[in-house]
Amino acid sequence: MKVVKFGGSSLASGEQIQKVLHIVMADPRRRIVVVSAPGKRAPDDEKVTDLLIQCAESQLKGEHSTDKVDSILQRYASIADELGLSDKVIVRIRRDLNAVLEGDRSEPLQYIDAVKACGEDNHAKLIAAYFEAQGVPAQYVNPHEAGLFVTSEAGNAQVLEESYDHLYQLRERQGVLIFPGFFGYSKAGRVYTFSRSGSDITGSVLSHAVKAELYENFTDVDAVFSVNPHIVSHPKEITVLTYREMRELSYAGFSVFHDEALIPAFRAGIPVNIKNTNNPNAPGTKIVSHRELTNGPVVGIASDEGFCSIYMSKYLMNREVGFGRKVLNILEDFGITYEHIPSGIDDMSIILRQNQLEPLIETGILTRIKEELAVDEIAIEYNLALLMVVGEGMRRNVGTTARAARALAEAGVNIEMINQGSSEVSMMFGVKETEEARAVQALYDEFFASASVHEKA
Amino acid sequence: MKVVKFGGSSLASGEQIQKVLHIVMADPRRRIVVVSAPGKRAPDDEKVTDLLIQCAESQLKGEHSTDKVDSILQRYASIADELGLSDKVIVRIRRDLNAVLEGDRSEPLQYIDAVKACGEDNHAKLIAAYFEAQGVPAQYVNPHEAGLFVTSEAGNAQVLEESYDHLYQLRERQGVLIFPGFFGYSKAGRVYTFSRSGSDITGSVLSHAVKAELYENFTDVDAVFSVNPHIVSHPKEITVLTYREMRELSYAGFSVFHDEALIPAFRAGIPVNIKNTNNPNAPGTKIVSHRELTNGPVVGIASDEGFCSIYMSKYLMNREVGFGRKVLNILEDFGITYEHIPSGIDDMSIILRQNQLEPLIETGILTRIKEELAVDEIAIEYNLALLMVVGEGMRRNVGTTARAARALAEAGVNIEMINQGSSEVSMMFGVKETEEARAVQALYDEFFASASVHEKA
Repeated sequence: MKVVKFGGSSLASGEQIQKVLHIVMADPRRRIVVVSAPGKRAPDDEKVTDLLIQCAESQLKGEHSTDKVDSILQRYASIADELGLSDKVIVRIRRDLNAVLEGDRSEPLQYIDAVKACGEDNHAKLIAAYFEAQGVPAQYVNPHEAGLFVTSEAGNAQVLEESYDHLYQLRERQGVLIFPGFFGYSKAGRVYTFSRSGSDITGSVLSHAVKAELYENFTDVDAVFSVNPHIVSHPKEITVLTYREMRELSYAGFSVFHDEALIPAFRAGIPVNIKNTNNPNAPGTKIVSHRELTNGPVVGIASDEGFCSIYMSKYLMNREVGFGRKVLNILEDFGITYEHIPSGIDDMSIILRQNQLEPLIETGILTRIKEELAVDEIAIEYNLALLMVVGEGMRRNVGTTARAARALAEAGVNIEMINQGSSEVSMMFGVKETEEARAVQALYDEFFASASVHEKA
Repeated sequence: MKVVKFGGSSLASGEQIQKVLHIVMADPRRRIVVVSAPGKRAPDDEKVTDLLIQCAESQLKGEHSTDKVDSILQRYASIADELGLSDKVIVRIRRDLNAVLEGDRSEPLQYIDAVKACGEDNHAKLIAAYFEAQGVPAQYVNPHEAGLFVTSEAGNAQVLEESYDHLYQLRERQGVLIFPGFFGYSKAGRVYTFSRSGSDITGSVLSHAVKAELYENFTDVDAVFSVNPHIVSHPKEITVLTYREMRELSYAGFSVFHDEALIPAFRAGIPVNIKNTNNPNAPGTKIVSHRELTNGPVVGIASDEGFCSIYMSKYLMNREVGFGRKVLNILEDFGITYEHIPSGIDDMSIILRQNQLEPLIETGILTRIKEELAVDEIAIEYNLALLMVVGEGMRRNVGTTARAARALAEAGVNIEMINQGSSEVSMMFGVKETEEARAVQALYDEFFASASVHEKA
């Protein structure tokens, strides 16, 4: 059994939904289909979810929102029309949407969640109707009825553990199940939505619950690239990578898949296949627990900007028990999260995202470190980029570091920082932001473009 | 004005003390001479300090120690005889030593300190007598009279700040001042000794106090080697290095100079010259605040064994505020100090000296990290060696990392860890202990032996 999730752009029009039908029909194991709300058909299009939020806000202010409700229904009606569906489904959607809009507004954030969720919920009903009209045995599944229970955290609901047992029962149902993404129900029966990329979470939870053999995630790209295509033109595509590799890449700028959404699938070891609705025959990119190591030690190169380094030195620092812990305590008092702590004998640096350092916070941190830890020197360096060279084959490969460092040296890039030795699948280099693009290109050339030339025994 | 300190082997015999006289006379700026107790003349010789400790312990047990006192006096008498000194100085030493041995034993540790200090104190008197007998205007200076005040911590006395003002007055005295190393006086007038390498501390404190132009530290080696001569045969000598470089090297196995002893000189920016009493014309090794960068980026390569790495991983670790701080708190609860914390996105490692991990402590740490931090995985890797490549020229030299990494790769050494980016003067590699010697040799060959062959633009 496969769980298949389609994103908003894959469901934005009747034409797109026809593709979805063909994809689902092409493999009888595609039994659970998780759907998003209709996305943009063109760049200037409005997403249904955004229209719904505007409706909810108008209602909360006591204003009428008839125009916006009409725009929303118009989107669904136009899709239904394209698909040759009868008015019946639009009548149902109108009735359901109005019921929610007239519902309980005593908890405004929960009310907004309930209205937002209508985007996915109604689209699931429409798609189920279309499948049935095409003679495919399909049914809309309501998350409450299926037992997808969540915490009462508006906009950030967490799945309750018991849901997995309830949802396992979906295996027994016949036909194709059309399941709306993005939300669940509290035990009291109220709708709460997940965080960003919420439909990905629904698909991941269902994959885990029904012990799917595969979680297919359809988007609008053929595959995950091995490097940022804005930096390197026409980079190679990644055919398979591990969860760990995906995590390391997504940390530094790769945003194809929201990595928190992966957790349920990751914990159950369900492989994930990122595919393109518009080109379903392309193999896409597979995310797995373990993979065979082929094509060299590196699978991808990622980079991200906006980091800074707080450097401090103190003679005999390394004899001082608790020094590092005290520094981290001070950061925690200011609510600052850090990324890495390279250290020498008598110095340490804290690498962190510099958007956290508002002037008052920066002054506060520097003052406390100076006063409480009596450092000899403290300084901040801004505008650093972190480069991640990622690959399961790297750790045990003598010489990967040498190749990376030489590639950077030959491109004239100075390495501000190296962090290697904890992660088995990545090596991190810190460089100045101004040298980021040159550095990424050099590493790509070394590990992808001309591997055969440089490869050493 | 120069402060000159001589170690025990430089003062072990009359012949050695004659060399010391010649060294002091060769430069009229050598005005303050700090002396140790007589050291070993041959490997099976007993140090006077050790004999004194035995005397003190006998006295504390109520036993007689006449034999040991005789052995000690015999050492001084034989030196005095070699130097052609009259009995007068030995009579004085006998009287002073007996007075201390019969002194107050109400605080046993302070009593041992007082007896130990006689080694340096009496030798200073003898050497002053010899200088005078040779027609050199010289005088023994008592640390109490000169104002070297310390805390009442037996065996670990700390210099009181006011001492620096008192000792500054030594500049006004005429002739050569012979100052016993290793001890000072509490404000109550009792003797307390410094920690290990205590005479180095006295020299460093005096250099700071009198604002010496140079602190010359005479030992029995020509210079500090650029690498451990037990690993690399006939390595190059270091002519000049900075305090920071010395600290980084001494951390990982270089033990020519006790780095805590350097602090007073370092704080005042007094250059230190390590020289050989037996070959005073050799330039020795100079330790300075700043140096010119010549002869490539690297000044020395050090290594040390006996490290281990506690590795832990947890999915989405980097989103968890306070994770690192909590780990460090647990280590601190067990009194464990760590060296470095390389980290990935979802994992971190703690590098520490493994002799701290007794079985009960190890189990305790692992249990608490597992239970309190809910890590997915935790493991310890033992028997790691840390290699330090040290040099002020390194940080700003594009390609140094590449050269080091390539040298290790070509020697077939796998790099377990790299720590670079905080210290401006060092780069640290972690390797398995079994690969330590090969790694050090490879780095030495790269940066010292064949620099001209490998050097790239």
